[in-house]
Amino acid sequence: MEDFQIYNPTKLFFGRDSISKLPKQAKIFGNRVLLIYGKSSIKRSGLYDNIIELLRGFEIFEYSGIKSNPVLSDVEAAVEIAKNNNVDMIIAVGGGSVIDSAKVVSLGAKVDFSPWEFMVQKKSPTEALPVLAVLTLAATGTEMNAGAVIQNKKTKQKIGIGIPLMYPKVSFLDPQLTTTVNAKYTAYGIVDIIAHALEAYFGEGDSPLADKFVFSIISEVMEAGEELMNNLDNYELRARILYASTMALNGTTNHGKISGDWGVHAIGHELSFLYDMPHGASLSIAYPAWMRLNAISQKDKIEELGSVLFGAETVEETIEGFEYFFEGIGSPIKLSDVGISKNDFDKIESQFINNHVSGVFVKIDRKRYRELLEYMK
Amino acid sequence: MEDFQIYNPTKLFFGRDSISKLPKQAKIFGNRVLLIYGKSSIKRSGLYDNIIELLRGFEIFEYSGIKSNPVLSDVEAAVEIAKNNNVDMIIAVGGGSVIDSAKVVSLGAKVDFSPWEFMVQKKSPTEALPVLAVLTLAATGTEMNAGAVIQNKKTKQKIGIGIPLMYPKVSFLDPQLTTTVNAKYTAYGIVDIIAHALEAYFGEGDSPLADKFVFSIISEVMEAGEELMNNLDNYELRARILYASTMALNGTTNHGKISGDWGVHAIGHELSFLYDMPHGASLSIAYPAWMRLNAISQKDKIEELGSVLFGAETVEETIEGFEYFFEGIGSPIKLSDVGISKNDFDKIESQFINNHVSGVFVKIDRKRYRELLEYMK
Repeated sequence: MEDFQIYNPTKLFFGRDSISKLPKQAKIFGNRVLLIYGKSSIKRSGLYDNIIELLRGFEIFEYSGIKSNPVLSDVEAAVEIAKNNNVDMIIAVGGGSVIDSAKVVSLGAKVDFSPWEFMVQKKSPTEALPVLAVLTLAATGTEMNAGAVIQNKKTKQKIGIGIPLMYPKVSFLDPQLTTTVNAKYTAYGIVDIIAHALEAYFGEGDSPLADKFVFSIISEVMEAGEELMNNLDNYELRARILYASTMALNGTTNHGKISGDWGVHAIGHELSFLYDMPHGASLSIAYPAWMRLNAISQKDKIEELGSVLFGAETVEETIEGFEYFFEGIGSPIKLSDVGISKNDFDKIESQFINNHVSGVFVKIDRKRYRELLEYMK
Repeated sequence: MEDFQIYNPTKLFFGRDSISKLPKQAKIFGNRVLLIYGKSSIKRSGLYDNIIELLRGFEIFEYSGIKSNPVLSDVEAAVEIAKNNNVDMIIAVGGGSVIDSAKVVSLGAKVDFSPWEFMVQKKSPTEALPVLAVLTLAATGTEMNAGAVIQNKKTKQKIGIGIPLMYPKVSFLDPQLTTTVNAKYTAYGIVDIIAHALEAYFGEGDSPLADKFVFSIISEVMEAGEELMNNLDNYELRARILYASTMALNGTTNHGKISGDWGVHAIGHELSFLYDMPHGASLSIAYPAWMRLNAISQKDKIEELGSVLFGAETVEETIEGFEYFFEGIGSPIKLSDVGISKNDFDKIESQFINNHVSGVFVKIDRKRYRELLEYMK
């Protein structure tokens, strides 16, 4: 085991109508709120009205229209609203994109330059507005971690970073709010959760209990996820997936390790950037290919994983186990499933080269990008 | 799944020489320190000198002599020192007994009555001194939770309670500090960790992923624990047990549940009280008996547990799996192993009756205390 720290200050309320606790928790931070959300879905579902009702007495400013692969221009626009109205806190209502955006806005609101400087690690933040998060999608784990992923259309980058100031102060997770997520996005969320657990597993350092937690999370998500796809409005199954999504990326799977690998997320981010592909879809294509690319160097780890999850005996059986599951829930496993052909490989390869796509621990040689693409085709 | 909250503010430093971070962390809370520890073992090991050296520049007051089943009189005496010297923080150096005592001292130092009032829930605390903990024994999980267990010789009670103000602010876990723990106490610690995971498992509410975490923790502790008994000075094995001890009782295994059961701890506390029996020893005697007592009402849960851990097919096979493991590491599984005969059953039964020994969820009818004792004999 490697030396490590545990510190996660987020307070998380999980369960039916947990957002009823929002006003009391928000009051702790002041009275002036920047409410950030995505498209009209929270208006259609009635959640927007509920939040406004709960926040009666607060002064509310709004920024809406955060996209599902969130972009810097939205973040910068929201920062202006936060600054101009001198808000005390940000309340983010939505999925990972909205909450990630809110986290970066919380840093940007305290400085007189673009928060992109923090994303590219040119500057280090020293303060942030408090972020409170109402989660509507089980996927990214952002509700209880310090991470955020934002893309910059100008520099053609999609970057993920972890900054301790970005832990949400309070998060509200009500599985009922996730029951209206459609089948496709439910599946993408499930893939994302599994991918987070796998990034920790393939990271640097040996931590047997953390690995057991990874196996627990993935088998839980596969069990509940499979059932959920046939019962999309089932509270219990939604709750199981939602809780697993938090545990897959709140630090637990990383205890006793140096870091996760994040190579597959790096691949996925480039695909999302180029094709505006849903994050989860990019991961269910990238993971099997990445495992085939690293079938020799990661043989023991892949086989242990496959043995626990599928009773598999070989690397290939393990990979097929994942492919079978991903396909079964309706997430693509090949680029051709989403209409991308070999004709695009030059373009994708250039994007990989420009952004040095690799893992932190399992390095991907640029000479092997083409081989990786062949496994994805 | 039941509604629940996650909030654990303890900052934990894990690994080699993690106590080197003590001065910087302590500085946050002030300059006047009450140092609490147990017997001379930390002096013999050199840890005491290390701590004093690290705290050069701090004003240090001391209370030593905390016993392994900690008593209220020690807590009250330490409270006086804290008050008289107006200390800013408590630094506890030792195992669960020392840290539990420090937590209760931290409440007592802020009021003009005995902190026992908080233990029996006659009063609710509103403030506490900060507690920093240097852990020397993998067992109780107190380093990252809000719990403490104290016995009162006058009222003949041993009570455990959880109060959020008692979370340590910072804990330092260096597996090297645990390598000198002897075989007996290493085994008792291992039993305690397993028992904590089981108390959560047999608690109220259904949370499949939390159950999977329980299985992960117990199998990790059994794997590493068995090896450790033959390699007591092995860093890696000590680290695995130490990390597992924290995860077994820092709230994780309780997510999605209403509460743990704690019936077996209730039994164990009475045995410890009557015979000054080590906590872990009392639990390895009590758990198999408790499972036999509840073989019918808990059949499905016991069988699932046994199937995952031992490939067992029946309740009895599962119980025998635990007995085999406990005996193998050198912890007693019968009262006769520790020299307690049937002649004492009246006395023990009266103690159970007086303190209404039961679980929170799995109730133990007083008419069945005798049957329970028969299973323990």
